[in-house]
Amino acid sequence: MPAIKLNAFSVLEKIRAASPVVHHLTNWVTIYDCAQVVKVLGGSPVMAHAQEEVEEMAGLASALVLNIGTLTPELVEAMKLAAARANAQGIPVILDVCGAGATSLRDRKCLELLDEVRIDLIKGNASEVARISGAQVRTKGVDATEVAGDLAEVAQGLAISRQATVVITGVADLVVDGSRRLVVKNGHHLMSRVVGTGCMAASVIGTFAAVEPDLVMAAAAGLVCFNVAAELAAEQAKAPGSFKVKLFDCLDLLDEPILAARSRVSG
Amino acid sequence: MPAIKLNAFSVLEKIRAASPVVHHLTNWVTIYDCAQVVKVLGGSPVMAHAQEEVEEMAGLASALVLNIGTLTPELVEAMKLAAARANAQGIPVILDVCGAGATSLRDRKCLELLDEVRIDLIKGNASEVARISGAQVRTKGVDATEVAGDLAEVAQGLAISRQATVVITGVADLVVDGSRRLVVKNGHHLMSRVVGTGCMAASVIGTFAAVEPDLVMAAAAGLVCFNVAAELAAEQAKAPGSFKVKLFDCLDLLDEPILAARSRVSG
Amino acid sequence: MPAIKLNAFSVLEKIRAASPVVHHLTNWVTIYDCAQVVKVLGGSPVMAHAQEEVEEMAGLASALVLNIGTLTPELVEAMKLAAARANAQGIPVILDVCGAGATSLRDRKCLELLDEVRIDLIKGNASEVARISGAQVRTKGVDATEVAGDLAEVAQGLAISRQATVVITGVADLVVDGSRRLVVKNGHHLMSRVVGTGCMAASVIGTFAAVEPDLVMAAAAGLVCFNVAAELAAEQAKAPGSFKVKLFDCLDLLDEPILAARSRVSG
Repeated sequence: MPAIKLNAFSVLEKIRAASPVVHHLTNWVTIYDCAQVVKVLGGSPVMAHAQEEVEEMAGLASALVLNIGTLTPELVEAMKLAAARANAQGIPVILDVCGAGATSLRDRKCLELLDEVRIDLIKGNASEVARISGAQVRTKGVDATEVAGDLAEVAQGLAISRQATVVITGVADLVVDGSRRLVVKNGHHLMSRVVGTGCMAASVIGTFAAVEPDLVMAAAAGLVCFNVAAELAAEQAKAPGSFKVKLFDCLDLLDEPILAARSRVSG
Repeated sequence: MPAIKLNAFSVLEKIRAASPVVHHLTNWVTIYDCAQVVKVLGGSPVMAHAQEEVEEMAGLASALVLNIGTLTPELVEAMKLAAARANAQGIPVILDVCGAGATSLRDRKCLELLDEVRIDLIKGNASEVARISGAQVRTKGVDATEVAGDLAEVAQGLAISRQATVVITGVADLVVDGSRRLVVKNGHHLMSRVVGTGCMAASVIGTFAAVEPDLVMAAAAGLVCFNVAAELAAEQAKAPGSFKVKLFDCLDLLDEPILAARSRVSG
Repeated sequence: MPAIKLNAFSVLEKIRAASPVVHHLTNWVTIYDCAQVVKVLGGSPVMAHAQEEVEEMAGLASALVLNIGTLTPELVEAMKLAAARANAQGIPVILDVCGAGATSLRDRKCLELLDEVRIDLIKGNASEVARISGAQVRTKGVDATEVAGDLAEVAQGLAISRQATVVITGVADLVVDGSRRLVVKNGHHLMSRVVGTGCMAASVIGTFAAVEPDLVMAAAAGLVCFNVAAELAAEQAKAPGSFKVKLFDCLDLLDEPILAARSRVSG
């Protein structure tokens, strides 16, 4: 796969200049970190989930991030209201299918969301995305580098059937739409030792999608920034507590030379 | 405006000695940080929101902090129950009008709270307080130092109409009641790069109000402590992740000489 | 009391090898820290509270942790569903009786849980456990070292009447069942300056109980690990913000020589 020239920094600069509002309906575990990652990138996070206000709040936003990590049926109804407004406004809707495959409620509610509103970008790990795609793939222990071929097929099948961009996070991250495939190879294994890095990745993608309409480019640029920051953080901190603190610091301090030197994206 | 002699440390000492219980009904984003800031000051945070227990819990507290950051109608009903008990007990009720102006639900529920229970202190940023006051002020990009005159008018109008102390946070913080005006000029711009510093400011004020009945003095003393800690934290940490960690450390370590040397309050 | 030979590290190694799923229904204040402490120990945290999925999720888990810190009646109903499934599966159920004694709702719901499902381990501080036991003990200011004799009686009475293991956390931690008593003397006073260390202790115990069927040994081993990590963290950080970051680091880095040298358990 050839290396891709992706100017992640130019998208980051747009975020820092425009400070786009990124509306979330997310889980109660990592809600703070999702908000803070948007903030350190330069965006303006808004978390609001009451059915009585989500449409109005989505109407003020430049992107909407949905995450089913601690879903209830009521919360999913609020997600549908927010997404319908986002669809009408023409702002991108990102769905993190967090925990898909674990319970039938999660599978059913993901499908309801995908059927009832337009989801512009679906994000999950390999087993979650495989479950949503309906594919009968062996997902235990799977990650994007080991079975990149099969996973990319699954992802692209889902991208085509749902007319969405699909992101599979793992040791390498895969970003596909109906015709394109990118692999982001940045990152660090300490990310998997910190609860919330997956949720934050979706919020990062949402923030980049708020200013970059090409969602494949937005997702890849966002993941490059997040993962390069993780690499820098891991150079300063060797254990999960300190690593997480440094991850926010390094996201805040990202600059063009670092991103240009570190970015490892292939297509 | 003349410098004001405000013994913030003496109030902090009372908190450390009495460890007052500060009951919160707050948002799900910054709920941990609100609890932790009360704890590091020396108070005893309690977070409880079930309608079935909020009255009893408020009855055990020395102050009540309400924050509508992720409100639902049900949560606001619980806030009313807790506040009515707080009113009956004679303990101060602090309302953070977080996100007022963003949606009609927020505006309506703030007004319901202000109409149906006694709110002793209203806290928000410039645009939030302006919205609650009903003033037709230009609030985009407003902060307390730029338009101190106008803002103070708005705040004092609200203070008089609601018979409450009013706090507007910003680059400088404004504390007013019907007759007095104080400006707290401490703080650091990194505070605006960390989600939750605004919510924490309300919790700090609640903790000071738990031991100091003069709410103008309580709010100013609390803001001095919080903002001086932020200045100290910013001397040790240059980016948001580390800054937040140091903010809690510096609050814990505040002493009289530091506060006396750093406090910048004018009236 | 004689020193006890407790191989806490061997249990920790089992967690690191098996990465057991630990399902939580917990409070909204410390939910992130509860998940993260399971993760840094090597376990796999799952937080899910919808009544529609808790049974299925508990069915995937190796232990269930319930914490009533921000309970509502609906959440407690979900806890009962999850616990009934856990009982049927034969996986341990840990109940943190957080805030028992503060309101009648908390007392009532704790008793409902204890009456309607099997709770394998009850964990609280001295006053909480005393309240649940129905004992008329003076609990203001009580801690395990001061009134170890009385507390152990109360705990053991509860252990016998509820056929459960009982843990009372304090300056020293007490672990009892119907016939055995252990005291874990590790720990550091900075733990009491950080919101959530009590909740995290219950999650730690749940993680150890997921791989060690003897719950007295599981609880004591978990508390030794958590408290030794706190001692190590306090050697690197003198204030609550930094201490909490280092606590996660030190849990991640625990090894056999450190645990063998530091463990202070007596029976």
